[in-house]
Amino acid sequence: MTRTLPSWSDGPTRDAIIAFAASVSSGPDAVPEAERVAVFDNDGTLWTEKPMPTQLHFIVQQWKAAVDADPSLADRQPYRAAATGDLAWLGGAIDKHYAGDDSDLHAMVGAILASTAGESVDDYEAQVAMFYRDAQHLTLHRPYRFAIYQPMIELLRFLESHGFTCYIVSGGDRDFMRPMTVEYYGIPPERVVGSAVGLTYDDDARAVRYGSTFDFMDDGPEKPIRIWSRIGRRPLLAAGNSNGDVPMLRYVQGHPRSLSLLIHHDDDGGRGDAPYDKGAEQALAAASDHGFTVVSVKRDWSTVFPEA
Amino acid sequence: MTRTLPSWSDGPTRDAIIAFAASVSSGPDAVPEAERVAVFDNDGTLWTEKPMPTQLHFIVQQWKAAVDADPSLADRQPYRAAATGDLAWLGGAIDKHYAGDDSDLHAMVGAILASTAGESVDDYEAQVAMFYRDAQHLTLHRPYRFAIYQPMIELLRFLESHGFTCYIVSGGDRDFMRPMTVEYYGIPPERVVGSAVGLTYDDDARAVRYGSTFDFMDDGPEKPIRIWSRIGRRPLLAAGNSNGDVPMLRYVQGHPRSLSLLIHHDDDGGRGDAPYDKGAEQALAAASDHGFTVVSVKRDWSTVFPEA
Repeated sequence: MTRTLPSWSDGPTRDAIIAFAASVSSGPDAVPEAERVAVFDNDGTLWTEKPMPTQLHFIVQQWKAAVDADPSLADRQPYRAAATGDLAWLGGAIDKHYAGDDSDLHAMVGAILASTAGESVDDYEAQVAMFYRDAQHLTLHRPYRFAIYQPMIELLRFLESHGFTCYIVSGGDRDFMRPMTVEYYGIPPERVVGSAVGLTYDDDARAVRYGSTFDFMDDGPEKPIRIWSRIGRRPLLAAGNSNGDVPMLRYVQGHPRSLSLLIHHDDDGGRGDAPYDKGAEQALAAASDHGFTVVSVKRDWSTVFPEA
Repeated sequence: MTRTLPSWSDGPTRDAIIAFAASVSSGPDAVPEAERVAVFDNDGTLWTEKPMPTQLHFIVQQWKAAVDADPSLADRQPYRAAATGDLAWLGGAIDKHYAGDDSDLHAMVGAILASTAGESVDDYEAQVAMFYRDAQHLTLHRPYRFAIYQPMIELLRFLESHGFTCYIVSGGDRDFMRPMTVEYYGIPPERVVGSAVGLTYDDDARAVRYGSTFDFMDDGPEKPIRIWSRIGRRPLLAAGNSNGDVPMLRYVQGHPRSLSLLIHHDDDGGRGDAPYDKGAEQALAAASDHGFTVVSVKRDWSTVFPEA
């Protein structure tokens, strides 16, 4: 018989998860099955977000291709950084965002919107699916399919076996995740919640197309809002890893039976996922204030990635 | 053995539905089960929208209570109409909307927003649930629970028995529908798509609250947009009854295997649902242009409402 949650090390974290699932799914105090909802952040929670979020890898490829088609684009950012492989500029934009300065991020968002404006959601889906088929993770040198966190996949299946319905609630672009979530995570597109570009409907082509404006960024306080909009229930369990997940981790605590998991990337690097706290400082502080269960990658996960 | 779709009369419409469900769910050309999605309008499709949409009944009660609390509100519309029972003014606002003049509707939307601004989604849910518990349909004189269309409930179950997942995609307020959709239709809150008021997140109370602005009206070209946003797939089957359903009925026709059903309220009134074409003129014209299957209430439904 396979051990429950085989990639989780023995210890209080694994014990807490197993006890929680048992308590809400059995006995006279069981939560009705329809109400057993769990929500998971994606980048840094279900798969690695280092050395850069997968979506940034994809977008840099798109911008590079745009410069190939129109070399004058290289005069400005973020196209120049993409064309010259200046990952420092791109990483700096993200760092500046965490520090409260969104100027470079705005330039990136503008270029992201330009890359899909007018495109149908079906064409984008095909393009993203091709990326996932061909792309290799930049430091693990394997398909992104194998850059997912094996313990979290086991947790998804474990919760499902206790009657839970699991959703992804990520700051990443909803439609960039959907083409891989069934195969990688076993989560269908209708259970993927993420950031969104405004859409238009083209009646002649019977096509839904991306517009030229951003609709919302599914991060921070927007996460509980999107959970209500999409699901219409308060989940029992949330898992995240960064500051933007704190409101969601707090929101589930409004349920009388809840578990909030904060993945802490304290791994020593030996498994290919560098240790980092950047972007998680407030979340780690909130964990002790509010009783989140901290999942230590180093201590609680015996295996991090699936075998390629 | 119970006859399939028992409240549907023998004839080409019932035959077409049964043949469609069989063809997409069996044999070598079956559509994969995960892709079998069906979308249903609500008002006039799953339940009666006459003499006024249920939501209007609820809102008029709210406005009346607001005038009781603050009589000065009766100086202006729509509060005056609500306080004096002036259904003609309210109906006129809807008629003017169909005629392209939204001035009175804007006054109504403003009053709708005012009625929930700052309220938590949980409190509103409880309030709406109480309305459904107590309210009687205005002309059928029975709970709204029994003002639903029995043939359509049978269609939902019939499609589910063929592997379909059914969603509601309505111009009505999403959160006004959710408290009744499980009990009335067997559709859980996460499969209810509708119009939405903008939300805010109150971190201290861990509560999602209604804001003071409208987010979007889920009608016309917005319906395919919301279908993609929420479901991430193109449905195979859509059912609607009015002009605002045409884009959704057309959208599903972009799928190689599709069925678009347009409910035509040509009933003679003997069953308590007055015949009407108002608000469906373009839809009826589009039906013949685009090959929608018209469901005649008079000819295709042997029973309209469930027994109270």
